[in-house]
Amino acid sequence: MSKHSGTLYSEMFDSKRAAPELRTFSECADQVRSSSVDIGPSLIEGRLLQRLRRSIGHLPIRLVLGRREELSPPPDTEAIATVSISDRRTLGKLLLSPEIAFGDGYTDGRIAVEGDLVQLIENFIRLTRAKPEGWWRKIVTGWLQRVQANTLTGSARNIHHHYDLTTDFYRLWLDSRLVYTCGYFPSPSASLEQAQLAKMDYVCRKLQLQPGESVVEAGCGWGALALHMAKNYGVKVKAFNISREQVLVAGELATKEGLSSQVEFIEDDYRNISGQYDVFASVGMLEHVGLENYRDLGQVIHRAIGDSGRGLLHFIGRNRPGTFSPWIRKRIFPGAYTPALREMLDLLEPWNFSVLDVENLRFHYEKTLEHWLTRFEASTDEITKMFGPEFVRAWRLYLAGSIAAFRVGTLQLFQVTFAGPSCRQIPWTRAHLCTEQAPAREELEWTHAMS
Amino acid sequence: MSKHSGTLYSEMFDSKRAAPELRTFSECADQVRSSSVDIGPSLIEGRLLQRLRRSIGHLPIRLVLGRREELSPPPDTEAIATVSISDRRTLGKLLLSPEIAFGDGYTDGRIAVEGDLVQLIENFIRLTRAKPEGWWRKIVTGWLQRVQANTLTGSARNIHHHYDLTTDFYRLWLDSRLVYTCGYFPSPSASLEQAQLAKMDYVCRKLQLQPGESVVEAGCGWGALALHMAKNYGVKVKAFNISREQVLVAGELATKEGLSSQVEFIEDDYRNISGQYDVFASVGMLEHVGLENYRDLGQVIHRAIGDSGRGLLHFIGRNRPGTFSPWIRKRIFPGAYTPALREMLDLLEPWNFSVLDVENLRFHYEKTLEHWLTRFEASTDEITKMFGPEFVRAWRLYLAGSIAAFRVGTLQLFQVTFAGPSCRQIPWTRAHLCTEQAPAREELEWTHAMS
Repeated sequence: MSKHSGTLYSEMFDSKRAAPELRTFSECADQVRSSSVDIGPSLIEGRLLQRLRRSIGHLPIRLVLGRREELSPPPDTEAIATVSISDRRTLGKLLLSPEIAFGDGYTDGRIAVEGDLVQLIENFIRLTRAKPEGWWRKIVTGWLQRVQANTLTGSARNIHHHYDLTTDFYRLWLDSRLVYTCGYFPSPSASLEQAQLAKMDYVCRKLQLQPGESVVEAGCGWGALALHMAKNYGVKVKAFNISREQVLVAGELATKEGLSSQVEFIEDDYRNISGQYDVFASVGMLEHVGLENYRDLGQVIHRAIGDSGRGLLHFIGRNRPGTFSPWIRKRIFPGAYTPALREMLDLLEPWNFSVLDVENLRFHYEKTLEHWLTRFEASTDEITKMFGPEFVRAWRLYLAGSIAAFRVGTLQLFQVTFAGPSCRQIPWTRAHLCTEQAPAREELEWTHAMS
Repeated sequence: MSKHSGTLYSEMFDSKRAAPELRTFSECADQVRSSSVDIGPSLIEGRLLQRLRRSIGHLPIRLVLGRREELSPPPDTEAIATVSISDRRTLGKLLLSPEIAFGDGYTDGRIAVEGDLVQLIENFIRLTRAKPEGWWRKIVTGWLQRVQANTLTGSARNIHHHYDLTTDFYRLWLDSRLVYTCGYFPSPSASLEQAQLAKMDYVCRKLQLQPGESVVEAGCGWGALALHMAKNYGVKVKAFNISREQVLVAGELATKEGLSSQVEFIEDDYRNISGQYDVFASVGMLEHVGLENYRDLGQVIHRAIGDSGRGLLHFIGRNRPGTFSPWIRKRIFPGAYTPALREMLDLLEPWNFSVLDVENLRFHYEKTLEHWLTRFEASTDEITKMFGPEFVRAWRLYLAGSIAAFRVGTLQLFQVTFAGPSCRQIPWTRAHLCTEQAPAREELEWTHAMS
């Protein structure tokens, strides 16, 4: 009995010992169930593991429960990682809600991963994405939607949770300009610095900013894009953000760069945007707005730029509507939701805005996140001093999981350029995106005569 | 009385005679209604005209009913056109169903337009687009949807109506390659020939066709794109079309160009596409599929290219869902519907296809149609000999109305590039669309290693 209870699975998959007909996990688990030998507590564990095995597909991992190795991949398959689960209770939670239990267990140390975390998650997503969503995930998602609703106060609380961590923390692993959104890598070998600069320029070019124009930005982070627009394109920018920490830092940067007369950073919700502008821009904010507020945001955009303005939305999206990772919502980004293009159109359709251009930069976000994770890992000692080891593990998991999601395609990154029905600032082709330097207005051809 | 009945409106708006308080059409019509003088039949006409005036907004036209001028624009406004309506019955129909009655009346000569037809329609759209859709339009649209339903036989009938007119007719006003879809004008001054060639090349580049790959095309017209792909990109193409006339001509062109071994033209419905391909392409066919068949078409695409393929949809769309012009449906394109992006996503979402790129070429279609109309007008004598004067007028109206719709933005032109969730042929950036010549595969950077 003790022989079975301790090393049952590993023995079964030991190529020298295992009967050839018992090579798969489910066969192995069936063997446990049908065994007439009384194997005590490990019978329950066996059943739990069998169910876990089912819920994670054919994931080639080595699974350790307590100090006992409980499941190994078939002998001809190399394990991509060893996942150690400290106790049976954690195992039970994994069955009920794999994503949240894994996230929480990994964070507090009850689950440890030896091996490539990104590859582990990537494989997990690939093997399980076709499965219908579990009832528990639906309940948790519904509950999170209620408690994290993006009302004015709810949004403030949600944004504060993530973005008001000290800027010194973000300085450790973002680029020097503190751009916390997907970069644009002209080549995969470009540096993170180059990619973030290129992204900001790409956005300005897509918007065809002209000197003297006015821009309103919703969700401006530490202000890098607003400052870039003002400095390099001669526009005036009003940038809204409800993260106090970010707005403070952004304001200091504007003063330092002598751009205070051109750029105004305002600590306020996008719903309170007032005034008239030529251009609306929002990079990496739509994910925090919440589906239920898209029509309101559309109205805000129309109020700001009217029928003749133009705009750009840059956001993490999906191929089709679906629920956002409940663990990321619970621990990292409260109130977040990544929309399908169909859902985003709720913003544009009521105002007869025309979609001019959509570009999918999914692989650029995978690359951006790889840079961030590498830099994050290089700073874990400092981050541990700042927030403790649990924080480090949670954020490692968030960054690694995001890489995996973009790599697999669970997440996409859309840049959508749009214009109002009377907009006269529409370039004839995409020639303005092709040159090394941003071309002057006169160098381009336009759909409407120059005004 | 005779004075009133004959030239009532023109006299009222003669600046020398009219009382200053009677300068607007509705004031004028009110005057007719409240007049105590018995003005006989023109009282009814006056009321009809007043209602027409309301339904067309402030359209600055001169309106002639029978031989009498009945309405003029205010003295300080220049009339953009004179619209002559032959009789009261036609006027009544205009009120019930402006679009269909205008189209039919213009076609059979009961309505004549002197002036710029495009500008007239453009102004009409601008002035009336905010109005809710009338009940009669809804009834007609519902009826057309039923009688023109795109079943297998319905589609065959619908396509036959338009595309099986003799090819000699289309030769008179299309480009030499017979491309009957929106061109891509590298510059607005490019010729139609250049634009159609550039469009085909643009499509091939967006799809990143590689020698030896296989392409399935749904709705191939006279085969220009399929032949271009085979000749210039070394791919094999199976092209489906249910227009017998077009397939016959396309087959002859393939033989003539020595491409019969590479390109197969098949007279069959897209629903009967079989086989496995690397790439799906459809240029200007989605408009004929009908909303109710999008999921079926999506399934056909997935069956053809699986999870690893890629594709392009080029179609006339809209900013938001709406009904297609009932007159165009009735007389020109039975069964047609122009979808919003949201509706098109019904094809892609169920199969987890990723939208990679959307480009709006609305102004390129306006330009293409301007070329077509100019060439059409230059051939009206020949076309009249072929099909009679009513046909010429109907097609003039269709081409002019389409120019107006793209100019105003009622219609948009979307090119959507997409890829399956396992596609490995995704270029890193849009660099492949920027060079003069299509770059070789090795010259580009890719999201996945070369296979």
